[in-house]
Amino acid sequence: MMIVAAFRDSDGPGLGLVEDDVITVIARGDHGPLLLDLIGAGMSGRASTKSTSNRIALSSVQLEAPVASRDRAIICVGKNYHAHAKEFFGSGFDSTAQDEIPQAPVIFAKLGSSVVADGTAIRASLDPTNTVDYEGELAIVIGKQAHKVSKADAWDTIFGYTICNDVTSRALQKTHNQWLIGKSLDSFGPVGPWIVTADQLHDIVDQELVTTVNGEERQRASIRDLIFDIPTLIETLSATMTLYPGDIIATGTPAGVGIGHKPPLYLKPGDTVSVSISGIGTLSNPVA
Amino acid sequence: MMIVAAFRDSDGPGLGLVEDDVITVIARGDHGPLLLDLIGAGMSGRASTKSTSNRIALSSVQLEAPVASRDRAIICVGKNYHAHAKEFFGSGFDSTAQDEIPQAPVIFAKLGSSVVADGTAIRASLDPTNTVDYEGELAIVIGKQAHKVSKADAWDTIFGYTICNDVTSRALQKTHNQWLIGKSLDSFGPVGPWIVTADQLHDIVDQELVTTVNGEERQRASIRDLIFDIPTLIETLSATMTLYPGDIIATGTPAGVGIGHKPPLYLKPGDTVSVSISGIGTLSNPVA
Repeated sequence: MMIVAAFRDSDGPGLGLVEDDVITVIARGDHGPLLLDLIGAGMSGRASTKSTSNRIALSSVQLEAPVASRDRAIICVGKNYHAHAKEFFGSGFDSTAQDEIPQAPVIFAKLGSSVVADGTAIRASLDPTNTVDYEGELAIVIGKQAHKVSKADAWDTIFGYTICNDVTSRALQKTHNQWLIGKSLDSFGPVGPWIVTADQLHDIVDQELVTTVNGEERQRASIRDLIFDIPTLIETLSATMTLYPGDIIATGTPAGVGIGHKPPLYLKPGDTVSVSISGIGTLSNPVA
Repeated sequence: MMIVAAFRDSDGPGLGLVEDDVITVIARGDHGPLLLDLIGAGMSGRASTKSTSNRIALSSVQLEAPVASRDRAIICVGKNYHAHAKEFFGSGFDSTAQDEIPQAPVIFAKLGSSVVADGTAIRASLDPTNTVDYEGELAIVIGKQAHKVSKADAWDTIFGYTICNDVTSRALQKTHNQWLIGKSLDSFGPVGPWIVTADQLHDIVDQELVTTVNGEERQRASIRDLIFDIPTLIETLSATMTLYPGDIIATGTPAGVGIGHKPPLYLKPGDTVSVSISGIGTLSNPVA
């Protein structure tokens, strides 16, 4: 269908469709409710991509995080690539390690208050332990209310895909045992740059994720390498919790995070961290 | 100041002040935004409790969960009473047990989608493992944006207090290692019955929490027995994450949960579980 971007320019916030270097404005206003309307229309086949005369240059806007609500927590998956599960287990920071490779999806939340857009600074200085690490991840955007969805039906609940950098304070992640504090520092939740609808990415599992820091490659993996694949995650979550349109599921990060290196390579002010997924785009954030 | 109740009756939803058996209606409409307005007014001293002629019997309304947004996750504290930390550590269900008594607050999230009101059924049948347990807890309602708040200033950030039953699937809590799934089943987040403002409860630490199941006492503790007290929790959380008006912090549960008994006493359909805190009231929910 399309690439959906939340943006802001001199005329205020809005929601639009991206094509090449141009945004066609769908509507102006707070993008959360507009996004939910579009998701509803898209999932029911009512969405139209009618061209309007309101076309603006992508370079003239500031992107915002394409989330339905800044209140809503991101549902995150831990240790979901084999090589990363091993590197984290061996890092000394895995407070919950009973198994090197988890027997069931490890699910935690990242508070919505941590979410920032592509281009917004990650405030590493907020972490008193100076152990700030990146985690490039594919994120799923749920398209319709989902309760007890089978693996076979799981794909039909997906509106689209975006990218999440699950930025983490490794020391706080360990100290507080459960991961909320280590994952939810203000600005530690970059999401974006936009949402690519699922019908453009039937081959999502064939896409490749690459994370770079200052242009140096740190993570590279195929989405196919997820331990618990996308249908399994949706089946597991929806078995007991209703998922709602706009919910975001960050599917886990592959090997190559900072603490996977010896000595660890933490993010520091002045760095730029970029997560790219083929078919979606690049989420890039400076570190401050 | 007052007792603030979110309610619904034949005229729709609204927000009101409770006195004895009467609700004085503050305003009609979706109670989330109304509650945020009231919190803002209350914290700045602008709130008035002017009597209106719109008084209705408490018995004629249905209470709703007094939360600013159903999107917002509840911030929860684990293992925060000594005797409970020991009973949980010894239960075989503590997936994160490095220490019997935690060295730092254990913080996790309960998704807002699990929240229900006083009187609403806890759907135990959603848990395929049949290990549904209660956790009676004091909950703090944040009154103003809080970032890097010291213990000394922490009390000033509190709008009021309510009660949370942090209902948990023990098997899912363990299986998924991080606790989100075990804590966020639909309907597993009773909050209420209302909010008592902080100026009515300067002596909150002297209050007593009692949980009963079918009238049988299961938990009894003083709020003074928290391992990490209220100022410490607010200081710890706000050190790296901004807290916002309406945020709810569930402070942890005392000893006496179902798995603290041998054999475990799980909740089952037909039960009624009630959590009372002196000075606040009683949160009571049937189990279905």
